[in-house]
Amino acid sequence: MLNKFISLEGGEGCGKSTLCLRLNELLDEMNIDHIITREPGGIKSSEEMRSIIMENELDRKSEVLLFAAARNEHLKQKILPALEQGKIVICDRYIDSSLAYQGHAQGLGIDNVLNINEYVVGDNFPQITFWLDMDVNDALARITNDREVNRFDQKAEKFHQDVRDGYGILMEMYPDRYVKLDATKSVDELAALVLEKITCLK
Amino acid sequence: MLNKFISLEGGEGCGKSTLCLRLNELLDEMNIDHIITREPGGIKSSEEMRSIIMENELDRKSEVLLFAAARNEHLKQKILPALEQGKIVICDRYIDSSLAYQGHAQGLGIDNVLNINEYVVGDNFPQITFWLDMDVNDALARITNDREVNRFDQKAEKFHQDVRDGYGILMEMYPDRYVKLDATKSVDELAALVLEKITCLK
Repeated sequence: MLNKFISLEGGEGCGKSTLCLRLNELLDEMNIDHIITREPGGIKSSEEMRSIIMENELDRKSEVLLFAAARNEHLKQKILPALEQGKIVICDRYIDSSLAYQGHAQGLGIDNVLNINEYVVGDNFPQITFWLDMDVNDALARITNDREVNRFDQKAEKFHQDVRDGYGILMEMYPDRYVKLDATKSVDELAALVLEKITCLK
Repeated sequence: MLNKFISLEGGEGCGKSTLCLRLNELLDEMNIDHIITREPGGIKSSEEMRSIIMENELDRKSEVLLFAAARNEHLKQKILPALEQGKIVICDRYIDSSLAYQGHAQGLGIDNVLNINEYVVGDNFPQITFWLDMDVNDALARITNDREVNRFDQKAEKFHQDVRDGYGILMEMYPDRYVKLDATKSVDELAALVLEKITCLK
């Protein structure tokens, strides 16, 4: 069932949201039943957990627990039911964001953050994770005032480089699941690459 | 420093809150610098996490993470600062409640719930945990309409018996930390027993 579960990952400014919009249009045109979602995914409890993270200066380990709990509710209430209905689920960020951002870039340890997440989500990992990778400075230059800037966008360049390095480590940890994409390609090129992989899923 | 950190534990209706009030009066009279607290302890983020637990039907593992995160913020923002000021801290429920209720009675496993909690609170365990123990039916009969009934009070008798059994297991796990008290004694007798132990702390 989980072979239709796809995640998109990458640092700030890599173009995930734009790609999601395009994928949504193309899957609609192809009449392929799907949902595009992102944490907290409109799940009331997950939205509330995310608000707590954004509005308070929490201990970093508390953040890890809250992100994992919000992810778990999003998974159980939205992602798994859609997969059970045979839909393709494309999730803009999932467990790898916690591993790259909190585990690696914030220094909490990928293994520690993985353990907490596996406690709640078990083996509900995506079949394919597309990593939109590009130079950090070029990516940050894309973040304009058009977009609502959150407190992760505002961290120093070093942090964003560490996030990129974190994804590199994850790609080595999960070679079968990871597909690295050159995020400087056009959205249409990227969408074609993603759709080619998705439509080949059995 | 943590040798002044005390927790009170026990099932619903065991009289913890009444005992806390009496201990507060007596410690005031003795001019012993102290705080009496209970999760979420007036910590804004912890209060919000607790509200999410109470107002949503969450997956039980999400609850474990939220309780642990709320506990961590209460610890870091209130308990540890009070201990650093040399105060005695008496906490009405702490980590053992998660272990007895969620770990044992809800069947998630004491070890699993302990691992999650230790990830955030480390070795910040109380020096002494007083377990107010009594027959489950007698304890439940004490819960009157005078008191706001929460969703843990309303569970079946079997659940409350399992909680009691959970505390029994914890007392075997932590013989040096646990002090079992007969909760059918008067509040003054109980307060005297607790104060005798507390005032002997080095």
